[in-house]
Amino acid sequence: MQDLIASSLKYQNNTLSVLDQYLLPHQQTWHVCSDVATMRDLILSLKIRGAPLIGIGASLLIAHLAEQGATKDTLAASIDELEATRPTAVNLMHCMAKLRIALQQSDFVTAIVSSAVNLFNEDIALCESMANHGAALVRRGDNILTHCNTGALATAGIGTALGVIYKAQQQHGNIHVWVDETRPLLQGGRLTAFELERWQVPYTLICDNMAASLMAAGKVDKIFVGADRIAANGDFANKVGTYNLAVLAHFHNIEFYVVAPLTTLDVSTACGADIEIEQRSSAEVRGVSGSFGEALWAPSNAQVYNPAFDVTPAKLITGWVLDTGVYSQREIEAEKLKELS
Amino acid sequence: MQDLIASSLKYQNNTLSVLDQYLLPHQQTWHVCSDVATMRDLILSLKIRGAPLIGIGASLLIAHLAEQGATKDTLAASIDELEATRPTAVNLMHCMAKLRIALQQSDFVTAIVSSAVNLFNEDIALCESMANHGAALVRRGDNILTHCNTGALATAGIGTALGVIYKAQQQHGNIHVWVDETRPLLQGGRLTAFELERWQVPYTLICDNMAASLMAAGKVDKIFVGADRIAANGDFANKVGTYNLAVLAHFHNIEFYVVAPLTTLDVSTACGADIEIEQRSSAEVRGVSGSFGEALWAPSNAQVYNPAFDVTPAKLITGWVLDTGVYSQREIEAEKLKELS
Repeated sequence: MQDLIASSLKYQNNTLSVLDQYLLPHQQTWHVCSDVATMRDLILSLKIRGAPLIGIGASLLIAHLAEQGATKDTLAASIDELEATRPTAVNLMHCMAKLRIALQQSDFVTAIVSSAVNLFNEDIALCESMANHGAALVRRGDNILTHCNTGALATAGIGTALGVIYKAQQQHGNIHVWVDETRPLLQGGRLTAFELERWQVPYTLICDNMAASLMAAGKVDKIFVGADRIAANGDFANKVGTYNLAVLAHFHNIEFYVVAPLTTLDVSTACGADIEIEQRSSAEVRGVSGSFGEALWAPSNAQVYNPAFDVTPAKLITGWVLDTGVYSQREIEAEKLKELS
Repeated sequence: MQDLIASSLKYQNNTLSVLDQYLLPHQQTWHVCSDVATMRDLILSLKIRGAPLIGIGASLLIAHLAEQGATKDTLAASIDELEATRPTAVNLMHCMAKLRIALQQSDFVTAIVSSAVNLFNEDIALCESMANHGAALVRRGDNILTHCNTGALATAGIGTALGVIYKAQQQHGNIHVWVDETRPLLQGGRLTAFELERWQVPYTLICDNMAASLMAAGKVDKIFVGADRIAANGDFANKVGTYNLAVLAHFHNIEFYVVAPLTTLDVSTACGADIEIEQRSSAEVRGVSGSFGEALWAPSNAQVYNPAFDVTPAKLITGWVLDTGVYSQREIEAEKLKELS
């Protein structure tokens, strides 16, 4: 397979490597990944994360295994196993579905490699298209709020919501970003802050519960967030705290955009209520743990509720920024997503 | 002076002791306090916290010093020094003002001891009144959400908002509490979780950004929060994140109550916009630090916005639960707070 280089994933000299996002921002460590068990661990421990990136990382591994001579049965089982690692994000399922089709070809090795390379390159192009459509919604001087991490670390390209922000800064300049820290796993404080610093886009880090008072003070012009899955009616699942922002935006009359590629659409899911929400471990809420240190501040047996995602209903969304364009509530209500899918 | 026992403060056998709240919930350590320098240190290091409790702790120390034979001049200087530890805490000023009056009496030792004991007992009674008024709003089986820590640790009595919850559990039973962890200083995760565990009130800890999806799922019946200052028009300042909850409650048609004693009213402040909001250090948002451990996850030079409080406008409040009763929006609009003050 040809060399493929992204911010947090690379295939080089027949070796797949993944940037350890658990160790960011203080350490930049790459892990070589040459088997399913390792990829599964990388995904479950969030060392590789971001809905698009997980799908592409898993696809490149399957292509690598195919090139290394894995049997059709082994590849089929590997695809199943990788698909089962995360239940909410649809990109992984989309990628694995493409590889299953390739696996049916007589020359399945070539077909799988070609599919994986296409998925990688397609993601870069999708990011670029979303960024251009989204940046057209932004004005010079805007204060943009975002949640979680949706940048180059989460995709093969420049990202989804954060890609829009990066593109807006390039095209218009004078953008300032409010970065939600995004408890419990702190993807905002760790990763988005890291990326914006690297890109030299001015930002200010806040705790998630501070966004409301910023909005009341008129200090937020627009909100851009990513999505893990968009249902047929326009409802979408994204990192927990996204729905909170949507309600706040609605109350304060602030534009609220979701940014995602068509691969995030899942029109077989009718509405948000049908999206399965992954529950994660209590330890994540009782404290923090990472390369940055460890702390347990709650009673060690505290009962915890820890949904990884929440669902934002279509009625709270100003616009859907997809790679094919920006869609309004009226278009979404007219079943535009089914047509695009 | 007679023995006086509260959750986090006790006067016993002529010895004043303070529970170290910085070490909670993992260690329960009491510090003996017999001089002004020690009390000053306990207050500044947040080992004793909660506006009512600081005032009472300082008062008991002054009474102890008076009994130990301190001169009038020494007592006057001690009152001044303790008052200066927290220039914004209105309860501390209120307590010190009472002791200054007692110091003018011919038998100032008896007068000061009597004042200090009264302040202690008055706080218990205020908590009890608020709790009874608030508990009457709660039904058996309610799921109540709260923010920060407003319990027995912060007062001589059972607390303000958390006192209501405790009383409701005693009176009605079958209460369940959603505890916001309350970033950045985690008073919910550390202290409220600790208190509810001690009281055996069932609770579940959440990150602040998870409350919205709980409300959407119909899992929150009522919200009770405390206040740091209530303005003449009913707007109030409280721990950052409170306003966020108020907006969410409004959107989801959930009852939202603020619980505070009359001593928290400040009718010289016309409205919330006139309340000055304290900004705290960037380090608190870049990571966490405490007896439970230390972690810095954000880029070490990340720019941060860290307001300690936010302001909730009266229009979002269902009822003001004061020690004198529960007041509606209509009553507050009719300037009830000025009348009560």
